Amino acid sequence: MDKVITISREFGSGGRELGIKLAKELKVPFYDKELIGLSAEECGLSEEKFLKYFEKIPVLQNTLENQLYNPFSLFYEIPMSDQVFLAQTRVIKKLAEQGPCIIVGRCADRVLEDSINLFIYAKMEDRLKRMNSLNTGTDPEIMEHKIREVDKKRKEYYQYYTGCEWGKAQNYHLCLDSGLAGIEGCFNTVMAYLKCI
Amino acid sequence: MDKVITISREFGSGGRELGIKLAKELKVPFYDKELIGLSAEECGLSEEKFLKYFEKIPVLQNTLENQLYNPFSLFYEIPMSDQVFLAQTRVIKKLAEQGPCIIVGRCADRVLEDSINLFIYAKMEDRLKRMNSLNTGTDPEIMEHKIREVDKKRKEYYQYYTGCEWGKAQNYHLCLDSGLAGIEGCFNTVMAYLKCI
Repeated sequence: MDKVITISREFGSGGRELGIKLAKELKVPFYDKELIGLSAEECGLSEEKFLKYFEKIPVLQNTLENQLYNPFSLFYEIPMSDQVFLAQTRVIKKLAEQGPCIIVGRCADRVLEDSINLFIYAKMEDRLKRMNSLNTGTDPEIMEHKIREVDKKRKEYYQYYTGCEWGKAQNYHLCLDSGLAGIEGCFNTVMAYLKCI
Repeated sequence: MDKVITISREFGSGGRELGIKLAKELKVPFYDKELIGLSAEECGLSEEKFLKYFEKIPVLQNTLENQLYNPFSLFYEIPMSDQVFLAQTRVIKKLAEQGPCIIVGRCADRVLEDSINLFIYAKMEDRLKRMNSLNTGTDPEIMEHKIREVDKKRKEYYQYYTGCEWGKAQNYHLCLDSGLAGIEGCFNTVMAYLKCI
């Protein structure tokens, strides 16, 4: 496998776990949260300040930032969330140039042109079961609320920065329900797919 | 594999070809166009009359049929397209009761509750290449128009009768881009997935 593999995932479906397994098997670097430090450095921000704008879409409020966002303003400058996204994009492209790797999230499937794109998801009950088995100690109702919130944000973020529909099968090469096959099953399936391309 | 496998597919992506290969490997019956005769029989129509309403959604015109469609009318009766869909639904359920099989299209993934649902798709250029390799002799521009037309109809039909979004990954257990891996690659991938469930 000489291509970058991107993994988009519903929260709690095990996309990160699958990515780690694939990276180990394929002996390639794995990037998920690791991208935060690299991207903060790229745009010259502290990790703390970077995280304030990370994976967020610009919110227009009646603030100085809003005035600066007005492209007709003399003081116009790119909103911080967009700067953060652009820095992340540059980092993803640089990493891809270095050779095959696994990248989780961050719209990497649309940033790169020649990657193999996976989407991992599962029914709510399967995701709750999985999260419970990880001993997060979180009440199932609170966990379900969190899952819906995170998915909503991921969907909006993806739509905002790519103009594409998050979770639409045609945006990916292979989409897998991890609830039925488990992460081990998804791993075997992805490996079978990779052997054929 | 003791479950029914349903295959939804974009036109020209090779979903039918994949279904035939899977049915042969798993030694189970295969139903695609075969459903037409069975469903026509189920609703007591000739195949010719059945095909007039097959895979269509009711069109409300200023005709007697329109007047009959009005649920407040004394003469209300279920539109033929709906009767045809319902007959097809009964046939699909009966077939599933008889044991594992492969069913292509016909919203079977939503009709059945415990099936394994696949979605097969490919980029337009890959589908045109595939259709060309099948020596259909059709001009690529005409073929592209046909592909878009058929996909549009399938999408509307699925949406109308299931209320779900055609091609949304979460509606299926496994979604595969056949352009990259080919039908043989998709076959190997599906077999790997089935071994894990």
